[in-house]
Amino acid sequence: MNDSRYVLAADVGGTNLRVAAVDSGGNFLHLSEASTPRSAATSEIVAGIVSGAKECVAAVTTSPPLAFGLAIAALVNCTTGRVLSSPNLPRLDGLELANIIGDKLNLGTVLENDATAAAVGEHWLGSSKAAKNSVFVTLGTGVGGGLILNGQPYRGTDGTAGEIGHICVVPEGLPCGCGSRGCVEQYASATAIARIATELSSGVGSPKHYHTSKDVFDSASGGDPNSIEAFRAMGKYLGLALADLVNVLNPEMITIGGGAAGGWDFFIEHVQAEMLARAFRYPADRVVLVRALLGESAGILGAARVAFDSI
Amino acid sequence: MNDSRYVLAADVGGTNLRVAAVDSGGNFLHLSEASTPRSAATSEIVAGIVSGAKECVAAVTTSPPLAFGLAIAALVNCTTGRVLSSPNLPRLDGLELANIIGDKLNLGTVLENDATAAAVGEHWLGSSKAAKNSVFVTLGTGVGGGLILNGQPYRGTDGTAGEIGHICVVPEGLPCGCGSRGCVEQYASATAIARIATELSSGVGSPKHYHTSKDVFDSASGGDPNSIEAFRAMGKYLGLALADLVNVLNPEMITIGGGAAGGWDFFIEHVQAEMLARAFRYPADRVVLVRALLGESAGILGAARVAFDSI
Repeated sequence: MNDSRYVLAADVGGTNLRVAAVDSGGNFLHLSEASTPRSAATSEIVAGIVSGAKECVAAVTTSPPLAFGLAIAALVNCTTGRVLSSPNLPRLDGLELANIIGDKLNLGTVLENDATAAAVGEHWLGSSKAAKNSVFVTLGTGVGGGLILNGQPYRGTDGTAGEIGHICVVPEGLPCGCGSRGCVEQYASATAIARIATELSSGVGSPKHYHTSKDVFDSASGGDPNSIEAFRAMGKYLGLALADLVNVLNPEMITIGGGAAGGWDFFIEHVQAEMLARAFRYPADRVVLVRALLGESAGILGAARVAFDSI
Repeated sequence: MNDSRYVLAADVGGTNLRVAAVDSGGNFLHLSEASTPRSAATSEIVAGIVSGAKECVAAVTTSPPLAFGLAIAALVNCTTGRVLSSPNLPRLDGLELANIIGDKLNLGTVLENDATAAAVGEHWLGSSKAAKNSVFVTLGTGVGGGLILNGQPYRGTDGTAGEIGHICVVPEGLPCGCGSRGCVEQYASATAIARIATELSSGVGSPKHYHTSKDVFDSASGGDPNSIEAFRAMGKYLGLALADLVNVLNPEMITIGGGAAGGWDFFIEHVQAEMLARAFRYPADRVVLVRALLGESAGILGAARVAFDSI
């Protein structure tokens, strides 16, 4: 592939909207960053994406882009390019977003779930490059997931596959935004880690409010037993969900990313122990748990890869 | 494919050992049935398989078979043809069974997990023919499973994928033979249905011991409230496990087979209700729950299909 060939890629999150021009080696030729107009009308979100795309095209003067890959924090139908359900950007629900953006830019545009895009990014250029079958788990505000099976992103029948965050780990547990109860998202997300640490500290000594998993990490690093316990508890719940995945999918690798992956040293042994205690021995012994390598670039790089593959 | 072409296929279970000659249309040209020499030495099990195979070859006089597909109730590595772990036939653990049988018959031989074979059989000739992505669940002594993803059997990295029976539905629940606790196998297998009904009846009125899920079905059909409740409870647990699968795999279809599928009318509404209450709306609304069509022939037909595909 000629080096001057490139695609546009976007990562449309609840907070940030990033659009980039990315070449076939995964290099950023240009990156446009803005805040997502969260409470705004659909047209403003569309305009934000189009504006970022035009900025990238203007910056890369060699040639026009080949395609546009849009990663978004939503259930999406990749075949039709339609947003099915978007809790963080509810105004996009039902929108044929790929067609709308594609028409405005006169450019072939494909839609991808952001966690699946991140899985593709890590498989292309990150930690799971060598793995034929891998599971990507992202621990952020929620718990997202993406699957690479037989070397390809597995999206399921409508593109909604990989919702690992909604594996049930406490059947009568906390209500979840998805409508169920006790999803692993409620016990192992960055949000959950801060909540668990806050709950533990309220029971003994001086109550403390942890706002983020980073607060808990800092406190755990200083030796605070409640914060250390919060990561232990979170690791056990995550390990239970991963045991289900090991039994069902027999992956070579599980890659863990997202902001709360920063607490790796405090939780990984508990994840591993619970997974080994619960999953079949053979696939549990063989699966490798690794940290994601690409950070917040995984999604946009995966979107770029999906765009290249769509050509 | 010429009609005179055929393969050998075997279903090696804990109780029965069946070997058949199967043509490319899925017709049985000959079927040999025997009891599995369960407590016997490895050599007797191997001899039983070889004997059944030779009986089939002798019965079909037109031409030699093209390959041999062996479905077995065990974790298997399909690539190497090795039995990894076989709770019901522990003497086979670690055995290079495909090579051993293949050498004795001078015939290319492939190994397959029995539930994955049944999934292949149902996808080839049964209820999930039209589905690109489907999950097969079998409710027998245990709960087995097989996955068809993107039209192909998904076996995972070592061939151990699809162990749906060991999705956790009660984290601190009953110990399971796999080493974990609270696996859906302990709450939704035929064995579990009989146990749950027995437990319910022991609490009120005249205690009754249910030996099989068929006993519970007969009793439920006669209006016995404990038996009806046993199917309700079992359905709820199965629905929870299927919700996890719907969120992770977004299948078009979930096919339910095995002996306890006979209780379909008593459990399916509870399975469906729990699945809908827990899984994401879009993939839960789209997935269809159906009964398996091929009965106990699913595994041997799937093994035949795997043998044809290996040529």
